[in-house]
Amino acid sequence: MTADILIRNARPMGGEPVDLVIRDGHFSTAGDPPAQEIDASGHIALPGLVEAHTHLDKTLIGTDWFENRIGPTRNERILADRKAKRELAIDARRQSARQILQTLQHGVLHIRSHVDVDTEIGIANIEGVLETREALRDLVDVQVVAFPQSGMLPRAGTLELMDAAMRAGADIIGGIDPATIERDPVRHLDAIFALADRYTKPVDIHLHELGELGAFCLELIIERTRALALQGRVMVSHAYCLGMLEPTRQRALIEALAAERIAVMTVGSPAAPALPLRLMRQSGLIVASGSDGIQGTWEPWGNGDMLERAKYLAQRNGMTNDADLAETARICTFGGAESIGLAGYGFADGDFGDLVLVPARTLAEAVALTPQKRTVIRRGRIVVRDGVPAASLSAAE
Amino acid sequence: MTADILIRNARPMGGEPVDLVIRDGHFSTAGDPPAQEIDASGHIALPGLVEAHTHLDKTLIGTDWFENRIGPTRNERILADRKAKRELAIDARRQSARQILQTLQHGVLHIRSHVDVDTEIGIANIEGVLETREALRDLVDVQVVAFPQSGMLPRAGTLELMDAAMRAGADIIGGIDPATIERDPVRHLDAIFALADRYTKPVDIHLHELGELGAFCLELIIERTRALALQGRVMVSHAYCLGMLEPTRQRALIEALAAERIAVMTVGSPAAPALPLRLMRQSGLIVASGSDGIQGTWEPWGNGDMLERAKYLAQRNGMTNDADLAETARICTFGGAESIGLAGYGFADGDFGDLVLVPARTLAEAVALTPQKRTVIRRGRIVVRDGVPAASLSAAE
Ligand SMILES: [Zn+2]
Ligand SMILES: [Zn+2]
Repeated sequence: MTADILIRNARPMGGEPVDLVIRDGHFSTAGDPPAQEIDASGHIALPGLVEAHTHLDKTLIGTDWFENRIGPTRNERILADRKAKRELAIDARRQSARQILQTLQHGVLHIRSHVDVDTEIGIANIEGVLETREALRDLVDVQVVAFPQSGMLPRAGTLELMDAAMRAGADIIGGIDPATIERDPVRHLDAIFALADRYTKPVDIHLHELGELGAFCLELIIERTRALALQGRVMVSHAYCLGMLEPTRQRALIEALAAERIAVMTVGSPAAPALPLRLMRQSGLIVASGSDGIQGTWEPWGNGDMLERAKYLAQRNGMTNDADLAETARICTFGGAESIGLAGYGFADGDFGDLVLVPARTLAEAVALTPQKRTVIRRGRIVVRDGVPAASLSAAE
Repeated sequence: MTADILIRNARPMGGEPVDLVIRDGHFSTAGDPPAQEIDASGHIALPGLVEAHTHLDKTLIGTDWFENRIGPTRNERILADRKAKRELAIDARRQSARQILQTLQHGVLHIRSHVDVDTEIGIANIEGVLETREALRDLVDVQVVAFPQSGMLPRAGTLELMDAAMRAGADIIGGIDPATIERDPVRHLDAIFALADRYTKPVDIHLHELGELGAFCLELIIERTRALALQGRVMVSHAYCLGMLEPTRQRALIEALAAERIAVMTVGSPAAPALPLRLMRQSGLIVASGSDGIQGTWEPWGNGDMLERAKYLAQRNGMTNDADLAETARICTFGGAESIGLAGYGFADGDFGDLVLVPARTLAEAVALTPQKRTVIRRGRIVVRDGVPAASLSAAE
């Protein structure tokens, strides 16, 4: 479902004002301009915000308030998470639709979601999110990662379920802390990468391992990426260890990741080690960002606004000047797009006709103040106008 | 300017629903209910958010976008700040009004503002903010701290200007990094406390000094507070050092501060050391929070929403459960009120008839999601309704 439209006076990534034409769902400079047009009033145009890491199946948006009495350790949180799935009967199909429609209003048009696979729910959440993806495909692109949240090696049957998830249509193999949860880094990573090889699919690994343990896991990931020629198809999510090493080691690891085109996703969490964003970008590393869980049992907050996420990245790194803030906006757009392997992302002829108009004077202002009255255009169709969703959206959930 | 009003079905601090009456500007349980009433729909009632640390004179709200090209050191920022005051001709009267009216919409009814005093602008900013305070006194309470941002001892004439600021009507003596900026901790603190003694006024000190240097400065502050019997009248702002000490030393210092009823203000900055909020509160320390600069040359962000600030505090401390989030809401209300010495703050008979209604089910939800359609009642008068300011406010700037 596409529309032809002329967008006047928009400023791509905060640059000079231009007129843009979308035809048959793609940007196009050829031919006469379409009859339908919209005045962008000099607002900044982004080619869609990219949510490179979230958990669509686990948001509690729109449900009763969940009173969080959970302790602080990762294990307590994993147990509480599985208990909540069981007792609250969270419907992954419905909940993923709620989150997608909420973040669409901020301009999120591309989402990579980890989706739980475990021996209690099997692949029901994968199926639920895939259903929603199909129902909302005209609005948003969704990539589904089969994610063994509760652990894979220690829980017999999980690896088989991961395999089933891939056959059911998951796009990406997910991994999880190879040492602290899996208790066997080599066997875990070998299993994950073997699946990637069998299904010719990318890999995305939750890596919270700290310090030198995390660095060692990164080395194992780099070795396997090289051995299987998976350059450009591996993402490491969180990678806190990169913020905990002495400078020489830190720089060498970042360069090794960049050489294998392994992307790193960071949410800029205020309570986790800060990743050296400037060094990472200057080293050519592909850097992406995401909201992680939104309004779930892990964390109660999160609105999925990836411009606000850019602000968190800047704040966590103590960045306040305009050039740095613009860089975090690029991480949440082009960086995210490259990290999840999006084709046709941008404003060039033939790129997908997606656009978010943000009422701000500069990219830095867009990041600093995250203005909300945005206009969102998807394949030429206006789906949100000045912050108000099109009437057709309210029926979509 | 007050009004009588009955507020039905409000939940003070997220507790059980009650009806509240405001009469002659104060809460009152006696007599017949007033004719004017409002249905709070079970929303949470807070007795006004407290902004315990900001810089009203330096916000750039409503001006041309300031392109920040400033380097990362504190000295570069102080120089840029003074240059901006000179070259942008920031009008402290107008700018402080803009910030007050913006944050009023979030429900901020009490503000302590540091206001620059230096040898270039003299006490012009103090006079400007005092003018605004008078003009907006029916809407918000403002405390003015005479703040030697550019340094006091190293810049001859500043101490005399501090004195002049107090004579002009400033409420509080401000201090600044006694070692790294002032280069002489004892002489700086002696000068500050001497002013406090002479004018019988409280003290509020910006203390960024790190580690043991900061701890030593805290000791000097504790000694002087005790010597001059200024218990309950001294605040230390930032006090990063409290997040950098080994546990025994940390605990002892926190207990010593609590014993002298010295308040600590933290903004929960993601790039600065995290203060141990739980330990501080459990030790009986008075903890307050603030936005610090809003949209200025120091930092481009900040909307002054003190519920969002509660979220930052929780996030910086890695807190996710409901009890902890409720605690951060208390820091931004009752904690702030106690820290700046507010009388009549609360819901008891005779307390000031101020109220913020937040559409949330629990305090934790209010902190996690910071809903914006708030209703703000000041001395019985509805000044913001469901997020929309009363017509009278638009003329106030
Ligand atoms: Zn995650
Ligand atoms: Zn300050």
